[in-house]
Amino acid sequence: MPGVPPTHFVFLGPEATFTEQALLTLPAAARGTRTAARSVPEALDAVRAGEADAALVPMENSIGGAVGVTLDELIDGAPLMITREVVIPVEFVIGARGPVAFEQIRTVAAHPQASAQCRGWLRAHLPEATVVDVLSNSAAAIAAAEGEYDAAICAPIGADRYRLALLAEKISDHPDAVTRFILVSRPSAPPAATGDDVTSFAVFISHDRVGALLAVLMELAVRGVNLTRIESRPTGERLGRYAFFLDCTGHVSDDRLGEALQGLRRICADVRFLGSYPRHRAVEGDQPIPAPARLSDVDYADAAAWLARVRAGDLS
Amino acid sequence: MPGVPPTHFVFLGPEATFTEQALLTLPAAARGTRTAARSVPEALDAVRAGEADAALVPMENSIGGAVGVTLDELIDGAPLMITREVVIPVEFVIGARGPVAFEQIRTVAAHPQASAQCRGWLRAHLPEATVVDVLSNSAAAIAAAEGEYDAAICAPIGADRYRLALLAEKISDHPDAVTRFILVSRPSAPPAATGDDVTSFAVFISHDRVGALLAVLMELAVRGVNLTRIESRPTGERLGRYAFFLDCTGHVSDDRLGEALQGLRRICADVRFLGSYPRHRAVEGDQPIPAPARLSDVDYADAAAWLARVRAGDLS
Amino acid sequence: MPGVPPTHFVFLGPEATFTEQALLTLPAAARGTRTAARSVPEALDAVRAGEADAALVPMENSIGGAVGVTLDELIDGAPLMITREVVIPVEFVIGARGPVAFEQIRTVAAHPQASAQCRGWLRAHLPEATVVDVLSNSAAAIAAAEGEYDAAICAPIGADRYRLALLAEKISDHPDAVTRFILVSRPSAPPAATGDDVTSFAVFISHDRVGALLAVLMELAVRGVNLTRIESRPTGERLGRYAFFLDCTGHVSDDRLGEALQGLRRICADVRFLGSYPRHRAVEGDQPIPAPARLSDVDYADAAAWLARVRAGDLS
Amino acid sequence: MPGVPPTHFVFLGPEATFTEQALLTLPAAARGTRTAARSVPEALDAVRAGEADAALVPMENSIGGAVGVTLDELIDGAPLMITREVVIPVEFVIGARGPVAFEQIRTVAAHPQASAQCRGWLRAHLPEATVVDVLSNSAAAIAAAEGEYDAAICAPIGADRYRLALLAEKISDHPDAVTRFILVSRPSAPPAATGDDVTSFAVFISHDRVGALLAVLMELAVRGVNLTRIESRPTGERLGRYAFFLDCTGHVSDDRLGEALQGLRRICADVRFLGSYPRHRAVEGDQPIPAPARLSDVDYADAAAWLARVRAGDLS
Repeated sequence: MPGVPPTHFVFLGPEATFTEQALLTLPAAARGTRTAARSVPEALDAVRAGEADAALVPMENSIGGAVGVTLDELIDGAPLMITREVVIPVEFVIGARGPVAFEQIRTVAAHPQASAQCRGWLRAHLPEATVVDVLSNSAAAIAAAEGEYDAAICAPIGADRYRLALLAEKISDHPDAVTRFILVSRPSAPPAATGDDVTSFAVFISHDRVGALLAVLMELAVRGVNLTRIESRPTGERLGRYAFFLDCTGHVSDDRLGEALQGLRRICADVRFLGSYPRHRAVEGDQPIPAPARLSDVDYADAAAWLARVRAGDLS
Repeated sequence: MPGVPPTHFVFLGPEATFTEQALLTLPAAARGTRTAARSVPEALDAVRAGEADAALVPMENSIGGAVGVTLDELIDGAPLMITREVVIPVEFVIGARGPVAFEQIRTVAAHPQASAQCRGWLRAHLPEATVVDVLSNSAAAIAAAEGEYDAAICAPIGADRYRLALLAEKISDHPDAVTRFILVSRPSAPPAATGDDVTSFAVFISHDRVGALLAVLMELAVRGVNLTRIESRPTGERLGRYAFFLDCTGHVSDDRLGEALQGLRRICADVRFLGSYPRHRAVEGDQPIPAPARLSDVDYADAAAWLARVRAGDLS
Repeated sequence: MPGVPPTHFVFLGPEATFTEQALLTLPAAARGTRTAARSVPEALDAVRAGEADAALVPMENSIGGAVGVTLDELIDGAPLMITREVVIPVEFVIGARGPVAFEQIRTVAAHPQASAQCRGWLRAHLPEATVVDVLSNSAAAIAAAEGEYDAAICAPIGADRYRLALLAEKISDHPDAVTRFILVSRPSAPPAATGDDVTSFAVFISHDRVGALLAVLMELAVRGVNLTRIESRPTGERLGRYAFFLDCTGHVSDDRLGEALQGLRRICADVRFLGSYPRHRAVEGDQPIPAPARLSDVDYADAAAWLARVRAGDLS
Repeated sequence: MPGVPPTHFVFLGPEATFTEQALLTLPAAARGTRTAARSVPEALDAVRAGEADAALVPMENSIGGAVGVTLDELIDGAPLMITREVVIPVEFVIGARGPVAFEQIRTVAAHPQASAQCRGWLRAHLPEATVVDVLSNSAAAIAAAEGEYDAAICAPIGADRYRLALLAEKISDHPDAVTRFILVSRPSAPPAATGDDVTSFAVFISHDRVGALLAVLMELAVRGVNLTRIESRPTGERLGRYAFFLDCTGHVSDDRLGEALQGLRRICADVRFLGSYPRHRAVEGDQPIPAPARLSDVDYADAAAWLARVRAGDLS
């Protein structure tokens, strides 16, 4: 129901990973109920089925790129709508059951992506330790807490939840790495424009038509729509057929974006609207991206007024 | 006054030229008053001043190209609006005071453009005759009628008006040559769309901005607007600054064209709307130019309805 | 013969008009022979036939626009090549057989274009005089010299040649008006690049293919070729079929322009190369137009060297 | 060394997965030595260090999309070159230590991606079984072979290697799913053009420049280069900065592609060439993708010859 904040939340589990940490930054989620799902499809299906009001799932990571399963789930099945984005730093920590010297650590549990991102730190500080692959950051924390391995690389929330002693913080080789999560609900009118919004949608094009992607970008460029992200995904039919996910600056209620979306709707095999929502501000004082010269809202309004006069025969 | 047919007409004189011949094809003009003007500016100024309801002036000739003074007058001074186009064949005749054998013709009066277009015929039939330049097709007919020269190349209407004996008809080297005239009035709501219309306008661009003309064409191409004619004209400021005159298929009341015109209004230094009017059909059964695939009126309406649903949160 | 300066010149007559004045600014022409032709086709045919080495004809006027007959002649018949451009100011003078007060002038001979451009001056200084149309600026000067009319509007060279007393100079309403003439020869290797050149050519496109002109401009834009002028001309076949005349910054020997011309050759129905020649510098210190960022000659050379390395398997 | 086929191969391990199965389709690899690497970076570094001649790693999956780590490794570190692509069907099997009825299977080991792709089959045939996540298809086969779990989902090669009894074949919900692998070597001259080749490269663009991706696609479109695949990857610097991976039809030695690559080199922040190699033919009789009309090799050769004539002054 538009205007009613969600109270039942589902998130990509297991518990005590970066996704739960991101969810807790939302006041409504901190107050509401939070259920871990075993997979992105499970999380989104819980929303589709009405068992949850909203799902928080990862969309994109500055190191690993797009989260394919999230993209695929957004364009398969009943439509959903992104109402919010949350971007948090990926700050890995290393913890153990209790204080322990680095020399005494022989085994480190870690999700393969976590250990890959901390390779430099491991080489420098634990060159002799064996890194054991586990299935999640949270599983790593649990394994260390239970003494199965000497230490674990995990999210800060994981160390905290399973009461690990922190051996080191911010051990990633990429200190500025972030993950972008999206909050997904059943379709309703998008949140009102704030003046600094993002609009997400997917277009389906046939690569048999040379120039199809060029035509998509021209629809945006001609209206001065600023593209901030584009991802291609196979449609599962066969290699060479793609859906493209686009993030643009602006809100679906803007003239500029509305006109561009209509253009895409006309020329693409299909367009799936995925939401308009406030842009995450990376840093204090981060400014909205301005419209290109001559393509501001004022220019759109002026042109519409001019056309109305022309159609009425007023050329003054 | 919209809906009231014009009764006082002015046309580019002198009398008895192709322009008057074109004007007489309009029933309202055949019934109304018709005044010859000495120049295109004089004809248009008579309309601007309210002394005439409409002016017929030449716009374009299939041999000589655009009529520069007409283009210039349309973008200078108080705005006017094209409400009609008339296209007639340029079929020159040669006439004399009375029947005369070709061998006896020593001098032929002709406007330089007329003699240039009949060069082949003259070489074949009057190789010995001297061609004398005069200032109009009508002046040629008068000079022959008055016996100043042995014969005259002129319009059929000129031979008829000045009672010349026709020595030969359709003597142009270009049997398919046509001239396009426009009927120009003071601004009012354009005539209703007929489904087969032309829209004319001029855009002003600065050539200092590389790619400016490319941007103009993209605004049209993205909306599927079909360009049927483009002319450049210097703006009189200095070499290298141009106005472009464009004719497009469609009517200003069409969504497609309205959106494109708004786009041009935003990106160009200026746009002057010149009119939407029924397309002259060159031949019986000449069909309207269809919209490109996926860019028909139905596609525009479908996309607008889709956007309205999306904005309301209906993604079904 | 390349390298051998022309000695026999022909120019659009009659004598003592702006064209002859422009021709005399060329040292080789001032020394060589100069013959007046009765028309642009006659001037160009004299070059084609080898009766003259080069022809000077008007190409474009800042007030009147392109000279259609020149454009048409360049694309019809045996190919010719522009080797030079000459731009001179159009500074009309008014002269008479001898000194005379304005009040005494009752008739003024003038070519219609000349009187049109001096309308403001005539209204201010000779409001009572009758302007009589004659067929050239030179004919006006002769008529005044012979006493047929009280005064003549003509080119400075005309007043000088026919020994008219100058009543006033620079009487045009457009003090900055200029005419651009071209010097045309039989084809040979173009003059060497100077670093500040113009290249002219014509492309033939079918308007049945929507977007054809857009495609032409893209070929130029992608290579960073700067378009300084574009004119459309009917091909004489029927309304709606056009040739486009383009002037670009640069020389046919430039990589940038060579690549663009090849692109046009591929996509257009036909391309006619018209010449590469030094750009006329409008004023002292007028600088060459620089290439767009990343598209300079250095960037072209760097990219070619890089591709050669890549093709050899050197990715360092 | 160009021309010398590789003899020492490395592939993404562990053994007995689809990657090894793909490698064995190459006769040189079937004869040569084959070493499993623990990760894509390890495989590629072995080639960079000269410890192997070539590495086979996964590039793209018709279900899961691009393999991010492969893309990242190709643009980081010392340059490498793709010399071959191998596409094989992803046909999962389910196996057990010995023949067993479905009703008796309580636990199934599977890599999470494998079980996700066989969800439909599992629901239909083993609705009661617990699926246990393991770290690779091969680990699943080993676990079943060792009796740790009742059955395993794995590649045909895994069932064969670990002597599992096949319970069912082709159990994927996506019967047409394929994975595309690339064979990567140290840089050398690319394999000769076959007339049906693919060229891969990455371009780096700054999203601060609106229209940058549009400009990339225009460089290709203007030359008639056919884009078969595009993937975006974050550059690791921060969200919003991307590299794009492009696959095009054709060979770096083609004029068309050479010209387009030079254009990209000029306008992009950087271009990394990744290889030209024979296109995998999906089915018998699969034809090469033809060049667009007017943009064939013949058209390129004709345009080059024409330009050479023009530059020499031959306009005949």
